[in-house]
Amino acid sequence: MTFSEREPFETWCERRRALVEHFLDQILPAAEAEPQRLHEAMRYAVLGGGKRIRPLLVFASGEGFDAPIETLLPVAAAVELIHVYSLVHDDLPAMDDDALRHGRPTVHVAFDEATALLTGDALQTLAFQLLATPLPGLSPDRQLGLLRGLARAAGSHGMAGGQALDLAATGRKIPLEALQTLHRCKTGALIRYAVLAGAYCDDPESRAYAALERGANALGLLFQITDDILDATADSATLGKTAGKDERHAKATYVTLLGLEGAIEAAQRTLEETLGALEPVGARAERLRELARFVANRRR
Amino acid sequence: MTFSEREPFETWCERRRALVEHFLDQILPAAEAEPQRLHEAMRYAVLGGGKRIRPLLVFASGEGFDAPIETLLPVAAAVELIHVYSLVHDDLPAMDDDALRHGRPTVHVAFDEATALLTGDALQTLAFQLLATPLPGLSPDRQLGLLRGLARAAGSHGMAGGQALDLAATGRKIPLEALQTLHRCKTGALIRYAVLAGAYCDDPESRAYAALERGANALGLLFQITDDILDATADSATLGKTAGKDERHAKATYVTLLGLEGAIEAAQRTLEETLGALEPVGARAERLRELARFVANRRR
Repeated sequence: MTFSEREPFETWCERRRALVEHFLDQILPAAEAEPQRLHEAMRYAVLGGGKRIRPLLVFASGEGFDAPIETLLPVAAAVELIHVYSLVHDDLPAMDDDALRHGRPTVHVAFDEATALLTGDALQTLAFQLLATPLPGLSPDRQLGLLRGLARAAGSHGMAGGQALDLAATGRKIPLEALQTLHRCKTGALIRYAVLAGAYCDDPESRAYAALERGANALGLLFQITDDILDATADSATLGKTAGKDERHAKATYVTLLGLEGAIEAAQRTLEETLGALEPVGARAERLRELARFVANRRR
Repeated sequence: MTFSEREPFETWCERRRALVEHFLDQILPAAEAEPQRLHEAMRYAVLGGGKRIRPLLVFASGEGFDAPIETLLPVAAAVELIHVYSLVHDDLPAMDDDALRHGRPTVHVAFDEATALLTGDALQTLAFQLLATPLPGLSPDRQLGLLRGLARAAGSHGMAGGQALDLAATGRKIPLEALQTLHRCKTGALIRYAVLAGAYCDDPESRAYAALERGANALGLLFQITDDILDATADSATLGKTAGKDERHAKATYVTLLGLEGAIEAAQRTLEETLGALEPVGARAERLRELARFVANRRR
């Protein structure tokens, strides 16, 4: 597989999204295979929806460091599987109790709660299974490193931990610092992993790695601030998920803490911070910079 | 660490249980670390309960093939973490809705549903994180193999898939063959993995492997038949979990399908089958044979 380095950003995004979509379709169990209901629900949850921001980050970062697409693809897919599993569980009645996702009924509404629970569980397992399958051009040793990184990003000190902090903060007023810690875990950890995993496929010892790490942290924050702004300003049809739910659930967000104007300023500042952090990486971070701007300006 | 090969079975079990308990205590996040409620729940779910059958199987098999205890311990702990995560999720109201486990309130009763959901999620992640950490005396390549095996055993074609089949079968009459498929996935896959992972730490190419595999399959079945018998005959205090719940939930079990006498005969036959399958492995399978007898005669 070869790709022109000069592809316009939109084309670049679309081609990688198509690659990930096809790859996920291939590795997900067939809907006809027993247990059918579970496999149907897994496919329903993963396919045909989602902006695939995390896979795009893996590609943006990895291609900048000349990692082959064939190596990046399973990594990108594994990160997306972890992300989707977390959405399926977060949407459950015991958590956010949401009925709409990617413009369609959530898994527990389209199927049932027990199936949604198992779907999330099995998608998490599949992510690790995928990343434990030998990757072309990567030593088993480095691959174990990628696996550990994904587990750390997803676990109780990362994404799952952030979700727990979010539960604890709901309905309470928390300071900005606590909100940042929450999001550094809840959404930041996986975004950070996506950026670093791409580069790790090439050379984790590279001088650019530290700069990438700072850029990835700022980008995670940027993503969350724009998420909060969109929840407060966009409608459900545009978002494909229930809008305005932060306010209804009395969630602490950048908008409730800083006001809408303040949040928009914070997003602009955080975009500058992301671009500044990536400066030392030079041309290798060009796609990442484009993606950062895309995240800052997204409408859904 | 060295252990006498001649330890009586009871002492052998107790020492390995103590090792696993200590190891799990060490690798679980501290209860004081944020997010505290999640970490407390993870520790509550894992520590201070359980027969640790799966870790014992890893040791029984692995020690027979001269794998070092230091290599077996993280494998045994990872299998147990997967098992515990599945119990936490199975006990949720959307699944079996159970309030008692290991003689104590289940996680969602002691904490809350959302925390129980995240606890199961984070325990699964921790299992893979643990197994992705370099193991002494095992090549990274072989370790990736162990990771893939665990993921296969836990995923939608293994444990999670079996749980989905179980849901689909509840309240319906299913033939014995379907019940066996269900259990080959639901409990069998992880038990089979525990037996084979131990031996895999030594030499997956050994001639004894195929015999072990047959023995492991029979042992998984044996475990489930005795589980069904105990659910029908023991009381909740002895089991430490709610007894008689298969009948209340109209679950297909060996007892409902074969009657109590028939199930007891099936257990005896399956024990003979397990011992017979392990015959070619010779003295290396001695602990496994002891464990098989222990499983057949257990009272809880």
